[in-house]
Amino acid sequence: MMKTRKAFVLAAFCLIIVDLACAQSTEDKVTQYVNPFIGTGAVNGSSLSGNTYPGATSPFGMVQLSPDTRDEPEWDAACGYNYNDKTIAGFSHTHLSGTGAPDFFDILFMPTTGQVHTRAGNANEPNSGYRSRFSHSEESARAGYYQVKLLDYNINAELTTGTHTGFHKYTFPKNSDAHVVIDLDHSLKKPNWGCKVIDAQFKVINEFTIEGYRVITGWAKLRKIYFHAEFSKPITNQIIADGGTVFQNNAVVNGTDLRAVLDFDTKDEKPLLIKIGISAVSTNNARFNMQQEIPHWDFNLAVAQADDVWEKELSKIKISGTKDQKQIFYTSLYHAFIQPNTLSDVNGEYPSINYTIRTGRQYSTFSLWDTYRGAHPLYTLVQPARTADFVNSMIRQYEDYGYLPIWQLWGQENYCMIGNHSIPVIVDAVLKGIPGINRRRAYNAIKASSTVSHPGSPFDIWEKYKYIPENKLSQSVSVTLEMAYDDWCVAQLAKELGETDDYNHFMERSQFYKNLYDTQTGFFRARDDKGNWLTPFNPLQYGGNGGNPYTEGNAWQYFWYVPQNISSLVELTGGKQAFDNKLDSFFTITATHGEVNGNASGFIGQYAHGNEPSHHVTYLYNYAGQPWKTQYYVSKVLTDLYTNNSAGYSGNDDCGEMSAWYVFSAMGFYPVNPASGIYDIGTPLLSKAALKMPNGKMFTMIAKNISKENIYIQAAKLNGKDYQLTYITQQDLEAGSTLEFTMGSRPNKKWGVPKTK
Amino acid sequence: MMKTRKAFVLAAFCLIIVDLACAQSTEDKVTQYVNPFIGTGAVNGSSLSGNTYPGATSPFGMVQLSPDTRDEPEWDAACGYNYNDKTIAGFSHTHLSGTGAPDFFDILFMPTTGQVHTRAGNANEPNSGYRSRFSHSEESARAGYYQVKLLDYNINAELTTGTHTGFHKYTFPKNSDAHVVIDLDHSLKKPNWGCKVIDAQFKVINEFTIEGYRVITGWAKLRKIYFHAEFSKPITNQIIADGGTVFQNNAVVNGTDLRAVLDFDTKDEKPLLIKIGISAVSTNNARFNMQQEIPHWDFNLAVAQADDVWEKELSKIKISGTKDQKQIFYTSLYHAFIQPNTLSDVNGEYPSINYTIRTGRQYSTFSLWDTYRGAHPLYTLVQPARTADFVNSMIRQYEDYGYLPIWQLWGQENYCMIGNHSIPVIVDAVLKGIPGINRRRAYNAIKASSTVSHPGSPFDIWEKYKYIPENKLSQSVSVTLEMAYDDWCVAQLAKELGETDDYNHFMERSQFYKNLYDTQTGFFRARDDKGNWLTPFNPLQYGGNGGNPYTEGNAWQYFWYVPQNISSLVELTGGKQAFDNKLDSFFTITATHGEVNGNASGFIGQYAHGNEPSHHVTYLYNYAGQPWKTQYYVSKVLTDLYTNNSAGYSGNDDCGEMSAWYVFSAMGFYPVNPASGIYDIGTPLLSKAALKMPNGKMFTMIAKNISKENIYIQAAKLNGKDYQLTYITQQDLEAGSTLEFTMGSRPNKKWGVPKTK
Repeated sequence: MMKTRKAFVLAAFCLIIVDLACAQSTEDKVTQYVNPFIGTGAVNGSSLSGNTYPGATSPFGMVQLSPDTRDEPEWDAACGYNYNDKTIAGFSHTHLSGTGAPDFFDILFMPTTGQVHTRAGNANEPNSGYRSRFSHSEESARAGYYQVKLLDYNINAELTTGTHTGFHKYTFPKNSDAHVVIDLDHSLKKPNWGCKVIDAQFKVINEFTIEGYRVITGWAKLRKIYFHAEFSKPITNQIIADGGTVFQNNAVVNGTDLRAVLDFDTKDEKPLLIKIGISAVSTNNARFNMQQEIPHWDFNLAVAQADDVWEKELSKIKISGTKDQKQIFYTSLYHAFIQPNTLSDVNGEYPSINYTIRTGRQYSTFSLWDTYRGAHPLYTLVQPARTADFVNSMIRQYEDYGYLPIWQLWGQENYCMIGNHSIPVIVDAVLKGIPGINRRRAYNAIKASSTVSHPGSPFDIWEKYKYIPENKLSQSVSVTLEMAYDDWCVAQLAKELGETDDYNHFMERSQFYKNLYDTQTGFFRARDDKGNWLTPFNPLQYGGNGGNPYTEGNAWQYFWYVPQNISSLVELTGGKQAFDNKLDSFFTITATHGEVNGNASGFIGQYAHGNEPSHHVTYLYNYAGQPWKTQYYVSKVLTDLYTNNSAGYSGNDDCGEMSAWYVFSAMGFYPVNPASGIYDIGTPLLSKAALKMPNGKMFTMIAKNISKENIYIQAAKLNGKDYQLTYITQQDLEAGSTLEFTMGSRPNKKWGVPKTK
Repeated sequence: MMKTRKAFVLAAFCLIIVDLACAQSTEDKVTQYVNPFIGTGAVNGSSLSGNTYPGATSPFGMVQLSPDTRDEPEWDAACGYNYNDKTIAGFSHTHLSGTGAPDFFDILFMPTTGQVHTRAGNANEPNSGYRSRFSHSEESARAGYYQVKLLDYNINAELTTGTHTGFHKYTFPKNSDAHVVIDLDHSLKKPNWGCKVIDAQFKVINEFTIEGYRVITGWAKLRKIYFHAEFSKPITNQIIADGGTVFQNNAVVNGTDLRAVLDFDTKDEKPLLIKIGISAVSTNNARFNMQQEIPHWDFNLAVAQADDVWEKELSKIKISGTKDQKQIFYTSLYHAFIQPNTLSDVNGEYPSINYTIRTGRQYSTFSLWDTYRGAHPLYTLVQPARTADFVNSMIRQYEDYGYLPIWQLWGQENYCMIGNHSIPVIVDAVLKGIPGINRRRAYNAIKASSTVSHPGSPFDIWEKYKYIPENKLSQSVSVTLEMAYDDWCVAQLAKELGETDDYNHFMERSQFYKNLYDTQTGFFRARDDKGNWLTPFNPLQYGGNGGNPYTEGNAWQYFWYVPQNISSLVELTGGKQAFDNKLDSFFTITATHGEVNGNASGFIGQYAHGNEPSHHVTYLYNYAGQPWKTQYYVSKVLTDLYTNNSAGYSGNDDCGEMSAWYVFSAMGFYPVNPASGIYDIGTPLLSKAALKMPNGKMFTMIAKNISKENIYIQAAKLNGKDYQLTYITQQDLEAGSTLEFTMGSRPNKKWGVPKTK
């Protein structure tokens, strides 16, 4: 890293060389297709959007520097921003992308002029606080860059980021009474989720530098966030408030409701630049992070570097398609690459789950119930080195905490959702041979996570009843189905490592789903610990996150959850014809108002693309011998339920999972069983996709004759040979194969149908 | 430190040698006089006691292993134990001695037999939980050792400690169904003081070892407590409960309401031994602490070592007196030496106030509003090395936090009480020349703490109004008086360092008390920011900790608080005669039921020895030219308000402050101005006291002809020469002087009266 001005000039020069070497003009760059506004707000009365934010961030970074349109964001703007809002409270440095639950929003900065405010104020009352109105017509965003005109102050605010750093550029009106507010109390609505600022500090180091931290409890039990900020101009005056107590020009203020207002001179008309380093460990580390990542004061250079970093990551997949398709595709890839988030500092230190400091390349933000399905399999293909880091980060949780992450936030477990879906992620990575993972250490972790009972995972009950009785643990049908799948994954790695007893044991457990199959109704249904079916039973009735046998879904949606043994599911259903019929019903039956709840959206019948339980179901027609129906529904989802606007997602992006579905499916395939190394063929949306594999080989998908109408596969070739299978394998991808489809407007009902059975 | 069995044998052998070398029989040891039950419970209807605990602890240690008679202790048993209680909930490893506010109570262990309980149960319902009845007739304690028979289980429990370690010996009945409960949820009453367990963990390392931690918020904003425990017998079975969820033989359980029940075999009739290391940093450090401090399994050796450590500390003062006097004196010295508590581990790591890990010899539990008066001056005399560590620990808070401790608990500031009384402690230590303190660093700390406004210390208001207006900050009279004193202390170090401007500035501020002196009523009274006296005014009306101008006292008690300039106070009062009259009134006037509150006790008129504001007042007759009245009242307090039983203190011991008053006063002198190096002569209680000074010289006080009746000084000699001054100086002590009093039953009204004015 560069530390001196000379080094920086050299760095800038090198950058030019690199740019020339790539011979890549702006027009060629795929970053031009990233539209960070996709998913930022529902339109036309729908309440759901992607819950994505438009601000600046770096691939898998610690910092997400984005505008918060809510002072105390909740469920409906868990990323802080809603496209329908009219005011911005400020720019905070950490955000979650696409989650249903809010958290982070740390270290809010807001430039203002005129009257000094220490509170954000009311969105409906201009001048009631430091927030400002804004207009989408004076707002722009691209990968690693965000800009907005703050209308109440006539300030142009621009933001960019490094992995651990935020870089702000505020252009104030000339001779304005310029302030920068820093709010350490800004957070999700207190005391929801037990949210409370435990302690916070501002320390003014000198007239150019301020440091501080906050310790906060909320969705994550405990988070420490330290910052170090440097300004391009001296602070001319300052107040720091702790609640109603105002301290004038104090060097240090400690409290739980801290807000600083710093004044700056704008006579020289130069914009104010602010560089901020963030750390989960200490202000020293925050400063070091900043010094290493932004050793200069050239905002444009930082923006260009952020763009380059994104270009490097996003160009791992090159596609051909319409502009809208490219924008949706690369924005999806961008959203998938936002997290898991870096937790360790440049010097490698990070807070471990047991509240000590360790060293390593550590990531967090593991929304695994969502991301094990598509996002992590995607990472194994295009982020192999980071995949090893993700897996090792998860294993470190096991080593300190006794079991693998369920939902890990800022290094801490919050037990959100069900299952132990670190397991498929780890098994998939190990079986795909991702370098840098110790197989035995990985196996110890997944075995312990499947045998040591912990919240949501009562393995004693699992082993005793061979299903989860609803009166022992709610969401029992969903837990039973998902636990059985995780067990299948454990068995696969046991087999690989020659652990035959374990293999047999976990394979047996992986079939426990059968114990909840009710032949009479034809659904997986809840039983009590006596074995009685729970009544009344309505397969359309949705559950949420407890109090019902189904998790954020209903019996219809969970019917399809046997990814480890779909042929068994077909048999249970009564054979392929019955399975086909059941799928047809699934895609057409509608629920009544009282049956459905807010957890599901993006409906095609009972298929609800807005939430994960449905995500693999369009692909199941392949197993009914009706791949043309898979092609029909996959195409329908790709075109109807993803759009190039703020309402672009039909539900929360859930840390990139909705996006990963799109990235895979638009290329023509998707991992129905995400730990199998098998990708089921749907139908391509793009005319071409070239995927650079970790081994350097290029896998290419070509869809000849594709068009809006030509959604059906007429024929396929793998490496020039006729191909009738409805899936491809990891080996095919690694071999650098070419998969060529010929498309048409009418189904070819013979393609992809096995000749026997 | 010893790690192997061979080394341990050697250590035991060395110990014997040392014992022989000292040629000190048990009868000679001063530890025999420590009665840890003094102060543990009020009797005869009084609600106040010392709030001291009878359990085992080491000098200034991290671990205080003591029985908790309350499951959720509050104000009235802030140390966990009340002598009047009939049951013991268990033995937790951390306690505060003598505070009015409860906290700590970490890592509770309790041996039981028979039915398994995971909750303490109701004290009034036998067998409702794991608690047990006990009887004082089967309970004993001495320095570093505690024993009790748990009557419900017929278990004899014995406890001893090292600095970071607890050592338990449980003798179960033969063939009993023996359990050990570990409760990580045990604490002060939740959610009082915002108390909440944020996270906790049990990790069973092997059949002999369990580790864990809890992260808890309460009176201290955030505390992390890690433990490592090893058993002399294997765990035969185990359950761990998180609230209502019970985990059978889990290797790890995480949760917020964790309790473990471990089973042990008692067939061999050997007692169960448990060694536990504690750390504020990590389980690794907890293990290392244990390994270093108790490398063996010899409980008796550990008890002997604990006794030796105490003997070394307590024998720094040798006295002659009655057995009761010795017991009260050495127990007082013992209580004074319990804290400040070690916070750093054996490897030097500790959690700094800004939630990072640093290295150093760090102490915490700074109850400074109490202990700056007598305890810290006592430490400068007999704990010089630790005094440097205390001061450097305080300075480290300033360097991370911007100002010095007000009340520091487990390394964190809780802003309890008023003033910035780290300042007199540091100034006293520096001016007495305690080695190991950087004077400039110390001065930076005290100056910042006197200029950077912080909670309770609005220096902008102080400088603007030259007093604290009650409508700007409550407790304004007490704050004004105490702040003026702290300012005087800053000025003294400024003078020493040649900071003349600062000296003049702080000396001016040290006189601000005059601005609240109301000549009409003759009291320090509250004004508002317009300068108006607040009405109505009743000098007998007590305040608490806010909402009244006086802190835990009234205008009568705070009248005397000008320790930096008593002659000025005498003048304000109207001269010596008026001052004498006012003192006479003070010691005789009584308040009505509605005027007094629970903060004051131990009354002699308005003198309330049970709380600190009165502590110097008996000595003020010296300044009225009536030292015989000082002698009368000091003697009265020494004999009437300290007793050798559970009600031995007339109020909370407040981290050794009540005790330090006794230690000084029984020797015949007390530091009215604790940063002056001057000790005011009261009257001796003991016939002899020999104090080994840090420079190796011996200061000796001899009271000839002393008896119960002979409480008046007839004559005094310093180093053989007639001595008429009513004070001695630090120089006299350091010179190894002999101060000899001749006592009599009637006042010698001529002794100690200056010849002029």
